[in-house]
Amino acid sequence: MQLKDINSFNESYRLQHLKALDYLKVSRNITDDQLLDIVQQLKTFQVAIPSWALGTGGTRFGRFSGAGEPGDLQQKIQDVGILHQLNRSSGAISLHIPWDTLSEDEIQTIREEAAQYEILFDAVNSNTFQDQEGQSLSYKFGSLCHVDKAVRNQAIAHMKEVIDQGQLVGSKSLTVWLSDGASFPGQLDFKEALQRVEESLREVYDYLPEDWQMFIEYKPYEPNFYSTVISDWGTSYLLAESLGPKAKTLVDLGHHLPNTNIEQIVATLIYKNKLAGFHFNDSKYGDDDLTVGALKPYQLFLIFCELVKGMKDNPSLSLAWMIDASHNIKDPLEDILQSVEAIMLAYAQALMVDYKALKETQLANDVTYAQEILQDAYRTDVRPVVAEARIQEGGAYDPLQYYRQYQLREQLIEKRGLYVKASGL
Amino acid sequence: MQLKDINSFNESYRLQHLKALDYLKVSRNITDDQLLDIVQQLKTFQVAIPSWALGTGGTRFGRFSGAGEPGDLQQKIQDVGILHQLNRSSGAISLHIPWDTLSEDEIQTIREEAAQYEILFDAVNSNTFQDQEGQSLSYKFGSLCHVDKAVRNQAIAHMKEVIDQGQLVGSKSLTVWLSDGASFPGQLDFKEALQRVEESLREVYDYLPEDWQMFIEYKPYEPNFYSTVISDWGTSYLLAESLGPKAKTLVDLGHHLPNTNIEQIVATLIYKNKLAGFHFNDSKYGDDDLTVGALKPYQLFLIFCELVKGMKDNPSLSLAWMIDASHNIKDPLEDILQSVEAIMLAYAQALMVDYKALKETQLANDVTYAQEILQDAYRTDVRPVVAEARIQEGGAYDPLQYYRQYQLREQLIEKRGLYVKASGL
Amino acid sequence: MQLKDINSFNESYRLQHLKALDYLKVSRNITDDQLLDIVQQLKTFQVAIPSWALGTGGTRFGRFSGAGEPGDLQQKIQDVGILHQLNRSSGAISLHIPWDTLSEDEIQTIREEAAQYEILFDAVNSNTFQDQEGQSLSYKFGSLCHVDKAVRNQAIAHMKEVIDQGQLVGSKSLTVWLSDGASFPGQLDFKEALQRVEESLREVYDYLPEDWQMFIEYKPYEPNFYSTVISDWGTSYLLAESLGPKAKTLVDLGHHLPNTNIEQIVATLIYKNKLAGFHFNDSKYGDDDLTVGALKPYQLFLIFCELVKGMKDNPSLSLAWMIDASHNIKDPLEDILQSVEAIMLAYAQALMVDYKALKETQLANDVTYAQEILQDAYRTDVRPVVAEARIQEGGAYDPLQYYRQYQLREQLIEKRGLYVKASGL
Amino acid sequence: MQLKDINSFNESYRLQHLKALDYLKVSRNITDDQLLDIVQQLKTFQVAIPSWALGTGGTRFGRFSGAGEPGDLQQKIQDVGILHQLNRSSGAISLHIPWDTLSEDEIQTIREEAAQYEILFDAVNSNTFQDQEGQSLSYKFGSLCHVDKAVRNQAIAHMKEVIDQGQLVGSKSLTVWLSDGASFPGQLDFKEALQRVEESLREVYDYLPEDWQMFIEYKPYEPNFYSTVISDWGTSYLLAESLGPKAKTLVDLGHHLPNTNIEQIVATLIYKNKLAGFHFNDSKYGDDDLTVGALKPYQLFLIFCELVKGMKDNPSLSLAWMIDASHNIKDPLEDILQSVEAIMLAYAQALMVDYKALKETQLANDVTYAQEILQDAYRTDVRPVVAEARIQEGGAYDPLQYYRQYQLREQLIEKRGLYVKASGL
Repeated sequence: MQLKDINSFNESYRLQHLKALDYLKVSRNITDDQLLDIVQQLKTFQVAIPSWALGTGGTRFGRFSGAGEPGDLQQKIQDVGILHQLNRSSGAISLHIPWDTLSEDEIQTIREEAAQYEILFDAVNSNTFQDQEGQSLSYKFGSLCHVDKAVRNQAIAHMKEVIDQGQLVGSKSLTVWLSDGASFPGQLDFKEALQRVEESLREVYDYLPEDWQMFIEYKPYEPNFYSTVISDWGTSYLLAESLGPKAKTLVDLGHHLPNTNIEQIVATLIYKNKLAGFHFNDSKYGDDDLTVGALKPYQLFLIFCELVKGMKDNPSLSLAWMIDASHNIKDPLEDILQSVEAIMLAYAQALMVDYKALKETQLANDVTYAQEILQDAYRTDVRPVVAEARIQEGGAYDPLQYYRQYQLREQLIEKRGLYVKASGL
Repeated sequence: MQLKDINSFNESYRLQHLKALDYLKVSRNITDDQLLDIVQQLKTFQVAIPSWALGTGGTRFGRFSGAGEPGDLQQKIQDVGILHQLNRSSGAISLHIPWDTLSEDEIQTIREEAAQYEILFDAVNSNTFQDQEGQSLSYKFGSLCHVDKAVRNQAIAHMKEVIDQGQLVGSKSLTVWLSDGASFPGQLDFKEALQRVEESLREVYDYLPEDWQMFIEYKPYEPNFYSTVISDWGTSYLLAESLGPKAKTLVDLGHHLPNTNIEQIVATLIYKNKLAGFHFNDSKYGDDDLTVGALKPYQLFLIFCELVKGMKDNPSLSLAWMIDASHNIKDPLEDILQSVEAIMLAYAQALMVDYKALKETQLANDVTYAQEILQDAYRTDVRPVVAEARIQEGGAYDPLQYYRQYQLREQLIEKRGLYVKASGL
Repeated sequence: MQLKDINSFNESYRLQHLKALDYLKVSRNITDDQLLDIVQQLKTFQVAIPSWALGTGGTRFGRFSGAGEPGDLQQKIQDVGILHQLNRSSGAISLHIPWDTLSEDEIQTIREEAAQYEILFDAVNSNTFQDQEGQSLSYKFGSLCHVDKAVRNQAIAHMKEVIDQGQLVGSKSLTVWLSDGASFPGQLDFKEALQRVEESLREVYDYLPEDWQMFIEYKPYEPNFYSTVISDWGTSYLLAESLGPKAKTLVDLGHHLPNTNIEQIVATLIYKNKLAGFHFNDSKYGDDDLTVGALKPYQLFLIFCELVKGMKDNPSLSLAWMIDASHNIKDPLEDILQSVEAIMLAYAQALMVDYKALKETQLANDVTYAQEILQDAYRTDVRPVVAEARIQEGGAYDPLQYYRQYQLREQLIEKRGLYVKASGL
Repeated sequence: MQLKDINSFNESYRLQHLKALDYLKVSRNITDDQLLDIVQQLKTFQVAIPSWALGTGGTRFGRFSGAGEPGDLQQKIQDVGILHQLNRSSGAISLHIPWDTLSEDEIQTIREEAAQYEILFDAVNSNTFQDQEGQSLSYKFGSLCHVDKAVRNQAIAHMKEVIDQGQLVGSKSLTVWLSDGASFPGQLDFKEALQRVEESLREVYDYLPEDWQMFIEYKPYEPNFYSTVISDWGTSYLLAESLGPKAKTLVDLGHHLPNTNIEQIVATLIYKNKLAGFHFNDSKYGDDDLTVGALKPYQLFLIFCELVKGMKDNPSLSLAWMIDASHNIKDPLEDILQSVEAIMLAYAQALMVDYKALKETQLANDVTYAQEILQDAYRTDVRPVVAEARIQEGGAYDPLQYYRQYQLREQLIEKRGLYVKASGL
């Protein structure tokens, strides 16, 4: 769907926007060049949208359908196309195999559809946490950690196919999230399970094309409720270290035990050159997969401060950014617009931090002012600068407002019907 | 299925059992009468089996089917019949409406089936956390807390129907678990949501037959991930207090924030005469719904100590006991046998505690010996006394061993086929 | 210490401040009257400073002294005087007995000292979690819950003395925080301990002057590590309900289990007219007692939204506000300035929320826009309006900046010496 | 203090003990040789007692003194001597410098005192979390991570002194627990802090004698409440890996976030040959430092299963075992006796596990029976075999009973007086 009238939509906000931008400059005491520099960094920031997040999600207790959802990959790309036209920061989609498996003859169409919206194909995702219809061996007791080599082989073969699929669309990385683990003490031998995962991953690693990377997620629990083989960043790091330079650790914000200091983990992984990137979401209890920034925006800001510092220290640092949320009660597209906005705001706030001054407070153990510096940036209303980046790229001043005003969901329902179950969870 | 040869199965264990029982008596320095008293209490203890736990459960990531599962209520009762014949402590089933809705003409059959196995009908459970096919209004945004009175009315009408169904089979209580809540700040007005729940529950309460009770569960999160209307025991208590003497608070062991002292909550509810009973399960992270006693057997023992004390103080204290677990990777029947065994062991250990001596240590602030007294009971191998209670009632010395040896699951598969999806989650 | 030149200090910020204020008005689209109304509410908001938080705090591992700390109550009042002159929102001090016990002849001096700075005396705090020198009976095993009535009597007598002391300075409430509990299972009989606390509190309650209130804190753990008698809001509520209308529940933000939804508890207590007020602080792990707003500013905002709504619904709602933090590594006065600022900002943000629009989204189950409305207020830079309220009352545009620029700590050190250990923890 | 009459004390329990032992053999179906093998392993197991745990501990809220506590190192050794005579499993003491700093001329006396009770000197512990009187630079803002190299040098020099002291008494390892961290975002640069710790530790590492090891503890929080530099096993592992083979990771059971699967960490560290050993204690909320086994005995058992497996796989695996608890309300000696007993029981239960059968269930994905095998061992009353090991070594059948009956504390009070503050926390 090609969105119309974005410019005229924006026009009505022009004066207030310019005033806001001007105030920001004055109040932060920054020059036009400095402002432009920040805008520039925001403009190049792209967050991938996972194909499975475009439909309504659910919990083990059930699922309440949404309306006008995409029924196939082409429609999913169209959805991302809408998002990207609106915010200009959603220029990538992340496929999940087998949900998005493409036949040879679909590929051209799909690539063209994506190109039309300037959408790239981000990391491809494997699925060994479910049994697919017709699958010969079950993952009930694990995939890459399974005691039976035949099951491991099946999972390895699947991951190679995912890489193959990824190559067809131009992806450059494989994200591996393993639900492998145990729900009861005694079920697994911890050491042997980890060894088997390591060996299996090595087979996949060796299959990676030259310019590909492997992103290894960790998660403490769910769907296994006693132990997960790759349970924490330390375990993921061990594996990535053992596999080689193409393997890195992926941080999903919801995959931590209560009270974990995630920004510290991020800093450590950057330091060791093993940070792959992020799955963004927010949570209060567990892997709640809520809208990014909906509950802990300050934590998100602190994480971005580490990223900005890391990118300052090492301009070649290249990270993968993806939303990984579940939209159970909101319109998925609205939800994602809110998530991307929260990410951009946190990034903009982190770009506002005076790191030189911060360093000085650290060297002086001036804890009070270290806090002041961070809070000063955080308390700044950076919405104008994010909007400016978006407008410069042709996006909408207020994507959510446009989405509602132009009744995009209603249009999708008209096209697709009320109830279409997207493939995925 | 009528189980055969239980006596002869037991016979092979007779000598070792008697020796064990004798050793227990000597080592605990208890008389035959004291032992019999404990056995007697164990014999009268019955744990209800929820109809939805007889099939394989799953998570939001998927479900790995089991085999030979019950396809309808009659088969579920047969499954409970197997359990009860084996352990003589599973003499009740808890129905879930609409999954177990009965038509007028099925009732007789079902009641006879249950009677045949000496199975009673425990609390009936309502379901307003899912939309059923053909349901006119959706519970996506709540049921008894919904802003729309029409939705609340639909949920109230459902609960009245559940009571009606319960009366048909002889139940005496309604368990209400509401998933009502919010996944995002701002979604709900806390106060008004609680008021609406209170008003709605009052309509249901007023419909309760004279000799019925209402059990109100609480849970901090899931499937809503920001707030649940009835989030903790305090909120459940407020409602139960407001509704009247027939309303009480039900404790599900998995429905607590990390590190909660559950035994203290139990003690407080008993003190205030507002404890309804339990949904037993075990967990490490959240509402993991694992086999009872699989992870925190000492906590289970401490909870039972409060129950035994409460029953000593007030012999008329009547509580509801039910398992509420999800059997995702084990055979559900084996899993339940393990759960019931863990419950009986914890109860037996709690019966072994010398409460008089404990009280003396408390009056003397002798913390060391208070701990000694509890640990002494807990460290005792009470399996013989639980087995004795079972044997005296005609059950199997080792239910799990019998189950495997007589290939009960294989028999069920032969009868029912490999893959039958039980109704439920 | 009478602070000088605050007006001329402010003068240098006047232009930028006016610009900021003007921008806020325009960007929020509010009239002068609406702005003034918000300023007015901020001006009347006063946060009490606890006398024990003016010195450097510590942990069980040790304490790193600060410099120029107050050595007696008079100096503590002078410190609060500095704070209040700077931010005009710290116009109350909360005494702790016995640390701040006054003799008859000191009272006049102390009251005059306080009056000079326009400082009121907020709730008085009892201490039964430590043994004082010369105390005849020990609180090692509890105070109001102790098995020995003599110990309970001693604690009750102490609380009556605290009330007496409070009356001498014009306090109107007693805050009771009991560390009473158990570090090991078996140590306490939960029910009897709660009963003894209830009976003991009743004796204190009956001693309360007509116009006094009793604030009952709850806390899950520390310094007892298995159970605290008043462990959660539910238990505090039970006690407050039983005692009568003068007894209410006090919420300390750090006294919750991981992931607790505190704003929901606040809403429930307001609904039941049992909220006493707050002990403000911030935390990541437990009762960390960090600077307010240092880690979870969004949670603070959500709590204030409940308070603003509560005060709108019931204009006579009167709550107690106090900081209760431990300043282990920052200058306590700087730390408190940051805390009060964070509180005022959260309050100002909550005052910016369009509750009418929020209610409409709730009635429409428009979860997306409910979130938008809250985030819109939260993302607004409300520092100008808080500064305006301060300036109008004669405070400093930037209290922390003034504090550093005028070298207030250095002046205190000169007067008091480098190392003075304040009484307290 | 040389304990008398242990043999005659034991004599009164002889018959019941033999009966119990016999029953254990029969009920577990094990031969005399197998029993002796287990007894033999229990006999060689020694848990070190930290010198600072012999006096009453406290919290930040205060400390309630005990009586008859040791006032100096000699008396501390005498206390350990009492413990070791009673349980024959406490044959080591772990010193803490500077609390236990020895002058040249004390060393001979101390070594003789220890030798007399057959007590070895376990790991020595450094202290950079407190400032000592007369110390020139403060650790308020860190020690090995401090931004000022002079402070780091002071801390490094201290650690070298600790090694020197350790050599004087025959220790072979240095335990490093760093409280270094931050209580507020911005206070520390995560990466640089970690780098400084790494560099500093290297200087200490290089100073280690040939046959020494360095044990690196991790801890998520306290006394810093935002971040600890060595916050988790992953960070400790990174450091140990970087330093070299003499550096290993020490696991303190209380140093984890809520719900951490500790046994999995243990297995991973064993696998990577980086497990140093343990600081044993128990906890419900944080680093509660309670009596071992007082709250989570099953978790302790599961940890020991990993240890037993690890030792089976690698007989040369050598680990350090130490209690690290705080005895706030119990007699420290009684508390330690309970801790050691809990450790020995968990070890004995883990020795009872049929690992061969367990492995078979794992290979068959027989989750039910994997659980059965573990629970079967855990539910066994292994007290007789632990007592047997103790008796064979000349210890008391029931150490705690002996301690009370022979009024050992009363004797210590008579010798040492009622209130003696031990050095330490």
